[in-house]
Amino acid sequence: MTEHKWIYSFGSSLNEGDRTMKNLLGGKGANLAEMCELKLPVPGGFTVSTEACLDFYQHDQKLSEEIKTQILNALSRVETDTGKKFGDKNNPLLFSVRSGARISMPGMMDTVLNLGMNDETVVALAKKTGNARFAWDSYRRFIQMFANVVMNVNTSILESQLEDLKEAREYKEDTELDAEDLEELVDVYKQVLAEEFGKTFPQDPMKQLWASVGAVFESWNNPRAKKYRQMNNYSDKWGTAVNVQSMVFGNTGETSGTGVCFTRNPSTGEKIFFGEYLMNAQGEDVVAGIRTPAPINDASKNDSNKVLKTLKEVSGTVYDELVDIYQKLELHYKDMQDIEFTIEEGKLFILQTRNGKRTINAALKIAVDLVEEGTLTEKEAVMKIAPDELDRLLHPRLDPDADKILLAVGLPASPGAASGKIVFDSEVAQELCDHGEKVILVRQETSPEDIGGMNVAEGILTARGGMTSHAAVVARGMGKPCVAGCTALQINEKDKTLRIAGKEFKDGDYITFDGSSGEVYEGIVPTIDAVISENFEVFMKWADKFRTMKIRTNADNPHDTKIAIDFGAEGIGLCRTEHMFFAPERILAVREMIFALSRDERRVALDKLLPFQREDFESIFKVMNNLPVNIRLLDPPLHEFLPHKESEIKELADVIGVDPKVINQRQDSLHEFNPMLGHRGCRLGVTYPEIYRMQVRAIIEAALKVKSEGINVLPEIMVPLISDQKELEILVEQARDEIQKVFSEQKSEIKFKIGTMLELPRACITAGKIAHSADFFSFGTNDLTQTTYGLSRDDSGKFLPSYEAQGIYPIDPFVSLDQEGVGFLVEHAVREGKKSKPDLHCGICGEHGGEPASIDFCHRVGLDYVSCSPFRVPIARLAAAQSAIKHG
Amino acid sequence: MTEHKWIYSFGSSLNEGDRTMKNLLGGKGANLAEMCELKLPVPGGFTVSTEACLDFYQHDQKLSEEIKTQILNALSRVETDTGKKFGDKNNPLLFSVRSGARISMPGMMDTVLNLGMNDETVVALAKKTGNARFAWDSYRRFIQMFANVVMNVNTSILESQLEDLKEAREYKEDTELDAEDLEELVDVYKQVLAEEFGKTFPQDPMKQLWASVGAVFESWNNPRAKKYRQMNNYSDKWGTAVNVQSMVFGNTGETSGTGVCFTRNPSTGEKIFFGEYLMNAQGEDVVAGIRTPAPINDASKNDSNKVLKTLKEVSGTVYDELVDIYQKLELHYKDMQDIEFTIEEGKLFILQTRNGKRTINAALKIAVDLVEEGTLTEKEAVMKIAPDELDRLLHPRLDPDADKILLAVGLPASPGAASGKIVFDSEVAQELCDHGEKVILVRQETSPEDIGGMNVAEGILTARGGMTSHAAVVARGMGKPCVAGCTALQINEKDKTLRIAGKEFKDGDYITFDGSSGEVYEGIVPTIDAVISENFEVFMKWADKFRTMKIRTNADNPHDTKIAIDFGAEGIGLCRTEHMFFAPERILAVREMIFALSRDERRVALDKLLPFQREDFESIFKVMNNLPVNIRLLDPPLHEFLPHKESEIKELADVIGVDPKVINQRQDSLHEFNPMLGHRGCRLGVTYPEIYRMQVRAIIEAALKVKSEGINVLPEIMVPLISDQKELEILVEQARDEIQKVFSEQKSEIKFKIGTMLELPRACITAGKIAHSADFFSFGTNDLTQTTYGLSRDDSGKFLPSYEAQGIYPIDPFVSLDQEGVGFLVEHAVREGKKSKPDLHCGICGEHGGEPASIDFCHRVGLDYVSCSPFRVPIARLAAAQSAIKHG
Repeated sequence: MTEHKWIYSFGSSLNEGDRTMKNLLGGKGANLAEMCELKLPVPGGFTVSTEACLDFYQHDQKLSEEIKTQILNALSRVETDTGKKFGDKNNPLLFSVRSGARISMPGMMDTVLNLGMNDETVVALAKKTGNARFAWDSYRRFIQMFANVVMNVNTSILESQLEDLKEAREYKEDTELDAEDLEELVDVYKQVLAEEFGKTFPQDPMKQLWASVGAVFESWNNPRAKKYRQMNNYSDKWGTAVNVQSMVFGNTGETSGTGVCFTRNPSTGEKIFFGEYLMNAQGEDVVAGIRTPAPINDASKNDSNKVLKTLKEVSGTVYDELVDIYQKLELHYKDMQDIEFTIEEGKLFILQTRNGKRTINAALKIAVDLVEEGTLTEKEAVMKIAPDELDRLLHPRLDPDADKILLAVGLPASPGAASGKIVFDSEVAQELCDHGEKVILVRQETSPEDIGGMNVAEGILTARGGMTSHAAVVARGMGKPCVAGCTALQINEKDKTLRIAGKEFKDGDYITFDGSSGEVYEGIVPTIDAVISENFEVFMKWADKFRTMKIRTNADNPHDTKIAIDFGAEGIGLCRTEHMFFAPERILAVREMIFALSRDERRVALDKLLPFQREDFESIFKVMNNLPVNIRLLDPPLHEFLPHKESEIKELADVIGVDPKVINQRQDSLHEFNPMLGHRGCRLGVTYPEIYRMQVRAIIEAALKVKSEGINVLPEIMVPLISDQKELEILVEQARDEIQKVFSEQKSEIKFKIGTMLELPRACITAGKIAHSADFFSFGTNDLTQTTYGLSRDDSGKFLPSYEAQGIYPIDPFVSLDQEGVGFLVEHAVREGKKSKPDLHCGICGEHGGEPASIDFCHRVGLDYVSCSPFRVPIARLAAAQSAIKHG
Repeated sequence: MTEHKWIYSFGSSLNEGDRTMKNLLGGKGANLAEMCELKLPVPGGFTVSTEACLDFYQHDQKLSEEIKTQILNALSRVETDTGKKFGDKNNPLLFSVRSGARISMPGMMDTVLNLGMNDETVVALAKKTGNARFAWDSYRRFIQMFANVVMNVNTSILESQLEDLKEAREYKEDTELDAEDLEELVDVYKQVLAEEFGKTFPQDPMKQLWASVGAVFESWNNPRAKKYRQMNNYSDKWGTAVNVQSMVFGNTGETSGTGVCFTRNPSTGEKIFFGEYLMNAQGEDVVAGIRTPAPINDASKNDSNKVLKTLKEVSGTVYDELVDIYQKLELHYKDMQDIEFTIEEGKLFILQTRNGKRTINAALKIAVDLVEEGTLTEKEAVMKIAPDELDRLLHPRLDPDADKILLAVGLPASPGAASGKIVFDSEVAQELCDHGEKVILVRQETSPEDIGGMNVAEGILTARGGMTSHAAVVARGMGKPCVAGCTALQINEKDKTLRIAGKEFKDGDYITFDGSSGEVYEGIVPTIDAVISENFEVFMKWADKFRTMKIRTNADNPHDTKIAIDFGAEGIGLCRTEHMFFAPERILAVREMIFALSRDERRVALDKLLPFQREDFESIFKVMNNLPVNIRLLDPPLHEFLPHKESEIKELADVIGVDPKVINQRQDSLHEFNPMLGHRGCRLGVTYPEIYRMQVRAIIEAALKVKSEGINVLPEIMVPLISDQKELEILVEQARDEIQKVFSEQKSEIKFKIGTMLELPRACITAGKIAHSADFFSFGTNDLTQTTYGLSRDDSGKFLPSYEAQGIYPIDPFVSLDQEGVGFLVEHAVREGKKSKPDLHCGICGEHGGEPASIDFCHRVGLDYVSCSPFRVPIARLAAAQSAIKHG
């Protein structure tokens, strides 16, 4: 019987893995092997495979003899390579023992460092390094870690021994403990373990090793790791690998050291090798900030470190070696690298390399440069930037160096920073803005009546509502910063006061927030404007080369439309008509229409609205030459337009000649228990056909007018909230009838499309039939998510956080399209729709149209376009390009 | 080339069709042929097939020569058979020309009678019958009908000529017109057609025939027929057949006559031949009620007709022939028949036979008798009664003979008649009932707080809400009469007045309504109690023999449960736990729980509720020995339980020691925009696990208690509103943990099931995964319909009628399960669920569980049971039996 291979060596003399073997060796093991493959100076070691982990669990949590034998063989190879010996009294070899699953689970599983320390090797280490304090401290730390991880002892009792000793010696810092103190502490630790827990610390390094490998395997199934996997949908059956690697120390003396470097500048992207180091130090010392790290070269100098010697000056050989390595690594990984290194007694070791974090501007420059340098193809470059990162590029942001007082954190509902005077009322907002003031509209939650105030405000801040609440959706559509669902806000609308974090603010007081982070600050915090670089333009052009889906925008006024086109939008995917109804000169006519008792009265009111709507469409069509414009007919329930203030009720009563009481009664009769599922969308078109007729007429009259001015108008009329084919058939017949009337009256015609918004499960299920009456489908995945889950986006804020925390919904389904449930319906509808009508045009206009994972789904199910808010157009362009590349 | 067959003769000498040929000959044509097949004396004729209709439309709306030739051949056969000749001057043959599609479309298409009348045949007919008035009246009617149907003339101008003549003669009734008057009128008619419309009435009978057949074919596509087909989902491509049948007249003199008879008594079902007739009369005279029809035999005599001579006395031969025929027909159709006959000059003709309408008690007796007589098998008998008819059997109804003043008509939401004093408030209702009063609870719409009042009221009457509004659902569950959505009610709750039909009622005034018809009456109308016959018991036993699905009931108290078991329920399919929370001694604890700020405070409140819940379950388990009881954990949003009255708010504030203002603030924070899609169902279990733990504990403690008393308890615990498998997994783990605690504490165990209610589209879509965590699925099709359609049942009353009227939804989807949309999800879920877990138990507990078409669907998709309100259990038993028989 051939022996199964459980152990894979990595290092200079034998390297058995590479980066493709993550499932077997874990991510860390595979990457260590990859670096060895490149002949980099990586401390040698071996990986105990994930298969060994599964074997361990199958055999009563024991390591088989076969595995142990293979470990011993690999260990002896490391001894040969390093010239050290495990447990040796003169030149002892020490190991780190680390977990490593196929996907990183940071902090979830256990690690043991300095394995191999005992009463003998500590002395050898002290002698060899000439640094007794270092040796005893390493030993003390090892005992503490081993007790915790392997012996499962609550080590707070060991911590308190350390504190007791410091108190006895009147020390303040751990660093004041000298070698003798630490030696004493090691004795105390061993004693406590024996007396308090009845456990003996094992002196035998082999015993330490077997126990540590087992403990790391066991940590795969500790409760927090299991929970983490559950939340991330990772399988329990993967198992973890264990990496046993020889220890190197940067703190053994003045010829040792440690550092971090970047192959390019992570802030600007400039092609400059860049880094910091400390001699006689460990990695944590660089981070801790007690000593100022030195620059590795002149390019890395700044005001605080320019007096320190560079690594190049201190050790030219090591520096040259490092330069050689970074160039190799960048070429190999085809990306800017973030490299950790340690120098042990003059010898350089690479501990880790990874793609470096960078600002979005740096990311763009690096991608463009790497293509120019011939390292990346354009296609590879396009894959290098996560689409969401572009968002940071497009909005103003808070000056990171300014002083700020944080008050609260809400949901980052629409990106960008905003400062202004607090106002609680949309009308007041409009008045103040007329006088040149900058305001922040602060509301419990916004409603369609707040559109005017939202439009003039610098930003919107709400106490209730989730990522897809009214405030969030409208703000994103407007490209306005918004923090929503900031539950710490206590708004008293009567007194016009706002309490946050124990402080009270009045209207007129200043406030600032960052819609990208959800943070709310006191007073005015300075902001920095977004600057769009040439690299961005170059990069986006490459993306557009590979993209197959079109990108449209959701916009309902020329201003937003213009922004979207500048960002690369190729049409309007959703033009809502209802926002247009709230302007002061129109709302009264809207209300007259609602309160009309007969069809004739309703027509009179609609006749007043017609010219307004026609103008709206004309102004949009004018900026959309050769680009399609998809207009949705009236959608919200009528009661959203009702008057609330007594003065408004009085005004309306006067106009239609009834008692204000009658208005109140009608308001009551329009009340709905669940307006989301009520008398709205095409149901209005079925019960009041004259409303949709007016809108269709306005669209076509506007289109003919603009066409006569030489512009190529491509109008698409969209019927919302369809649940049944007959419903659509009847409404399409009505619309075509009205359009023919306009054609005859004007003696001119134009091409148009009529289709429907699929936003109810039943519409998706019966899409094969519905397609017969539709030129296009546009998926309204906001409402489709609400109905598929039975989940009101305006109410879900109370319990969705709890759902995300427990890992029930891995991500808010209003943020990223639920591919399993909602996606099932979308896919079914596209398939059945195209089966009935092969040239059916399909797109998405819900909020998901601007979210990369959702866009990838849209590409896979064969949508023709996605539509998103103007500021997300570039993100959508890049995401669509990446999907096209990924799925070939 | 063989000629295609377009024409099918029926009659004594040649009969080419039978009842299986409905698609080709239409329903009427096929049935005429079937009667001829039985050698019954049916006036001969022929059917122009539906294929000829399609051919007509394919050829520019013209009859082909081939069809015309075949018609001429068939016509000549009828002449031979009758010894009359079409257009003959001595013995003219006349025809009726009637439409007949494969499914009856009553009144939608056209008919022409007396075809063949002209200036010559009218004289012949007068001479032959010795009845000139009859002949001229027939001619006048023919011209009028022909002008209308064939010449497409608006015949109101002819009507006014008739009225003018009556006025000139000072007649009041048409019958006063004599032969000369009618002859004059015929001339006037012809003149008007020529002068006003430029059209000549054709004297040539063949021209009349071709034009009439064409006109009937054309009527297939008249707007009302098209609309009717659209509404009923009938295909435009079916076409209609045309039946050309020789006319017979019952009004040619004293040896002629007409009548209607039933083969059994349609009121009681007794096996007694039963009927009425009139000599020298036409069918319409029997109906018109101007002359009192005579009894055909002694058995048919009653107070008003007993002095008249029976048919048996007048013409024994005809009577005997009729007896012979009725026996033949009943045996042939295996059902009680309703037969129309005409006697023309002593010769009997059968014009129509059909299954006779009957009362439900008669239907049961007839079915049982026919089995005893050996005519029907038990299986055939079970198919004879429409399940919904049983409903009339189970509820009291209004005395049909009592005087009543109708006030309004609402939705027939829960059957049965009820009288009582008007009350507008649940508490007042309870007080009055404590004093022995009978009350009708009148509300805009009920809410869960009204449970107490609904429970004591005789019936519930609401102004708003549809067939599945709260009032309707709860009333049906209680078996209480209810009229809902009676929009004519103007309720003023402050003044405690009710206006209907211009009349004002105060609380304490009496009112009556019929929940089966939706009618509301003034004052007290006497009612008749339901009596359940022995035939019912026998019949239902047969049904149960064939049934494969189990029938359960939705009930949440021992009283309803008992009724359901008496009606044959085999378990509880849905026991709602929330109704139990409203009792006065409990609601305060519920509110304490809701307002608890910490988990500990919440536990204290829940500990108060635990004993109540345990008692509830004990009392139900006790009547459910050996029968499963499915208990749903808390489902409604918490704000349904909140206090509204100031006194209640004050009381609660005192108990939990806060200011009443705090209560108001908490109330506000619990407000939801769309409670249907809000924080309810299992979402409560996820955020407040202790609530579900308390309920699970109460169920299991109660079960163990009752088990110790020797009763076999089969508890099933149902988690509502699941949208995701992980959600269920977590809640099931919690429940099992609590159950194990109870088992350990009590040192006793019991078998139980835990499953879920599938009521959201996403749950159905992902059912394959959810099944892994569920012992059973129960489809909550009320909520599933709401979410699949995006349609709130409480709000849909405003527009659903318009949807039904336009044929968009052929039937209210809350009444009959939408098989195409909602059904798709149910079928998908059952299939995927059973794929994952073959022994998964599946049922339905929505309102549809008591509706026959929906039950048929449930059978077809393989559900194990349906659950419905107690009073619908017999209906469900029968419907399930019929489905099992139908689908083998």
